[in-house]
Amino acid sequence: MSTAERAIAGLKEIVGDVGLVLGSDLAMRSCDPFRTVPPRGGVLVRPANTAQVSAVLRWCHAHGQRIVTHGGRTGVAAAAYADEDEVVLSLERLRRIEEIDPVGQLVVTEAGITLEGLQQAVEAQGLFYPIDLGAKGSATIGGTIATNAGGNRVVRWGMTRANVLGLEAVLADGTVVCAMNRLVKNNTGYDVKHDFIGSEGTLGVITRAVLKLVPAPNTQQVMLASLPSFAAVLQLLGAARRLHTLSAFEVMWQDYYALVARSGGYACPLTPEQPFYVLLETMGYQQGVDERLFGTFVEEAFNAGWIADAAEATSERQIAELWRVREGSEALMREMNPFVAFDVSVDIRRAEEFVNDVRRHLARRYPDFKSVSFGHLGDNNLHLGVHIGTRTLDEEHAIERCVYEVVRQYGGALTAEHGIGRLKRPFLPEHVSAGAMDVMRRKRSAFDPDRLLNREVLF
Amino acid sequence: MSTAERAIAGLKEIVGDVGLVLGSDLAMRSCDPFRTVPPRGGVLVRPANTAQVSAVLRWCHAHGQRIVTHGGRTGVAAAAYADEDEVVLSLERLRRIEEIDPVGQLVVTEAGITLEGLQQAVEAQGLFYPIDLGAKGSATIGGTIATNAGGNRVVRWGMTRANVLGLEAVLADGTVVCAMNRLVKNNTGYDVKHDFIGSEGTLGVITRAVLKLVPAPNTQQVMLASLPSFAAVLQLLGAARRLHTLSAFEVMWQDYYALVARSGGYACPLTPEQPFYVLLETMGYQQGVDERLFGTFVEEAFNAGWIADAAEATSERQIAELWRVREGSEALMREMNPFVAFDVSVDIRRAEEFVNDVRRHLARRYPDFKSVSFGHLGDNNLHLGVHIGTRTLDEEHAIERCVYEVVRQYGGALTAEHGIGRLKRPFLPEHVSAGAMDVMRRKRSAFDPDRLLNREVLF
Repeated sequence: MSTAERAIAGLKEIVGDVGLVLGSDLAMRSCDPFRTVPPRGGVLVRPANTAQVSAVLRWCHAHGQRIVTHGGRTGVAAAAYADEDEVVLSLERLRRIEEIDPVGQLVVTEAGITLEGLQQAVEAQGLFYPIDLGAKGSATIGGTIATNAGGNRVVRWGMTRANVLGLEAVLADGTVVCAMNRLVKNNTGYDVKHDFIGSEGTLGVITRAVLKLVPAPNTQQVMLASLPSFAAVLQLLGAARRLHTLSAFEVMWQDYYALVARSGGYACPLTPEQPFYVLLETMGYQQGVDERLFGTFVEEAFNAGWIADAAEATSERQIAELWRVREGSEALMREMNPFVAFDVSVDIRRAEEFVNDVRRHLARRYPDFKSVSFGHLGDNNLHLGVHIGTRTLDEEHAIERCVYEVVRQYGGALTAEHGIGRLKRPFLPEHVSAGAMDVMRRKRSAFDPDRLLNREVLF
Repeated sequence: MSTAERAIAGLKEIVGDVGLVLGSDLAMRSCDPFRTVPPRGGVLVRPANTAQVSAVLRWCHAHGQRIVTHGGRTGVAAAAYADEDEVVLSLERLRRIEEIDPVGQLVVTEAGITLEGLQQAVEAQGLFYPIDLGAKGSATIGGTIATNAGGNRVVRWGMTRANVLGLEAVLADGTVVCAMNRLVKNNTGYDVKHDFIGSEGTLGVITRAVLKLVPAPNTQQVMLASLPSFAAVLQLLGAARRLHTLSAFEVMWQDYYALVARSGGYACPLTPEQPFYVLLETMGYQQGVDERLFGTFVEEAFNAGWIADAAEATSERQIAELWRVREGSEALMREMNPFVAFDVSVDIRRAEEFVNDVRRHLARRYPDFKSVSFGHLGDNNLHLGVHIGTRTLDEEHAIERCVYEVVRQYGGALTAEHGIGRLKRPFLPEHVSAGAMDVMRRKRSAFDPDRLLNREVLF
């Protein structure tokens, strides 16, 4: 019996036929959001509930069977790729919302529901889950927790970690860890949920969660502004932080904004002549007051000379259009195809200098490179795209080495929100301290001594 | 050579005479904020820096020497108590602020500085560290991180965990774990700082930290209101959550408010005739606007019938007086001496029912008991004080068992913010799931296999 046959026979006992995806059905699934990369092991198991997840993991543990966990497969760090000797464990059948509590301001849910599905369910009750991503239609709650997803509104509401009250996870040996805390204040022992948040599926499989909600905002302002200097960007950020309603502060370097503006298909209200562009969003609860405060803020920013020009959205459609400029991925795909993408964090004060240094390093090696820079500056997070013509993918690793070396010199983060996965694994040990690596290894050995879960991920 | 003599000789090599506190100097220190409980081992070592902390722990590890870590010794769960075979490790000489970054909005500090010392240093630069506690003059930053301290402003800014960007800790074997992250978004591997936050000194000794700051608020409103019912309290809380400026929502049951009002020495502006009293505080950045919004909020609460009567503070002095009512510990000490104190969390919707149930359970056993209830309701956190006359301390454990049984039935938390320490250790396994206990044990074994650090704490 082959490994796959053994797994199919053993797992069918637990989950039945409906709980297995095999053959051509499986071959149509991709582990990558952009390319077709089917799981190579040929077996996907999809348990119906926590008890089945536990039984599946117990069986795998008893048979030394490696597992790769699948949420919505929208991650860009290859953490969902599965090798020939790996069985895929999908949470897709655990997608029930168990309870929405408007007083405790929380939702209790299974992990396989999509982010968008959850957002819509809580919004129907006047509540709001603030984590928001482009991939929300496919990304699952479990996946966003396992990767500590970020997105555009971290400046106000924090990363996913800050929005998880409790969770349930299953360890590699099948042990169910129920930590479904619903209380804001709870110091009853170690807060074990944090072990699983951001662990990229290496310490356990997240099956359920309790998420924190806020009242649904009913005001929103979005402005696109052009700024004459990086100093002006920092001034504007400092002032914006005193707006309680600030929900996004997105910076675009001229190279990015000009590329999107030139590319066509975008409603770009400002000419691409200034060095920086900022998309600023507020969300609040005080109709009238919020608008007035925002107006005063913009006026003061103009008077102080921080803003050269600005366009405010006055309709839902315009809001969506301005956000499309910031999320201009089609333009990038078209104008810089293919490109190497970076998701790093740096000291805000040095972000301009950092980008210039990266460009200098790239220019030395690739005189005709093209790059764009943009990101969630209030959270330190910069995204860079680098293109060097048709050789781009051949040179991918060398380009990464070049950029990450500058990141390291600046004490920056190798990954701000996308995670390490398989892709950035070679770079991890250079970007954390030896002591932190030691703790990571101790934890992984304690939770999964046989390294059965997502073995090729992280380290 | 006795154990103490051996430790003194070994540790003096590392820290010198100035790094040891012995004999009568040590006997004058208490491990308890309310009573005189000197460390029983007779040796306190106070290293000057991280390298010395590491060397001390390496020495202890090599000699199987148990250690109890001391911050400001303000904890009320007896986590700082030290047995005869335990050496005390104090962080009191690590109290330097290394850097304040107004753009990154963070402070880099050694762990031994007091909370108040840190607050003052950052306020001098227009910044604000939102964690605030009665014990801030003595409590240290390291201690507040190790216990994940809460306090009054959690409803706005979260527990200590939410305000720590990075930290450095030393493991029991002397391994220095540098995780001094300064970036809001950073998913570079497991976020190991969370292992140490709230671990009550059992997983490592925190030596340095990076803390998140916010711009210092320049507006503040404080109101004391009386409310006709618990339903009204919930309505008021729901509305208050839409005030961006909300910084505290403190509820007092009539038994508490009446006791403080009767006790004398307090400026209680409202008569103690309503079932509930709420202290509501806002802090903001928009002079004029914040006051107006608060005024509208209060007016609407009156019109809706949620508030029966209210008194707004109109000066710094009145603000302090209203807060003194909420923190009326002298009154409790006087009127209910001695009392058993509780720090639990429950589902907000069931808080009234919970308190009534606790009272019913107590009345069955102690017909002439007295109790008071108050707390940070927006965070689920209730504090209860129970007094049954002169037998109170003899019955302490039985009273605890009685109350914690109700907590368990309500799915509440054994401790919201004070921690487990030695005092609540017997109750821990009944209040977390078997799987969560399993994870806690795995972690402790991975970080400190010999259980040298704070051995009697937690489990």
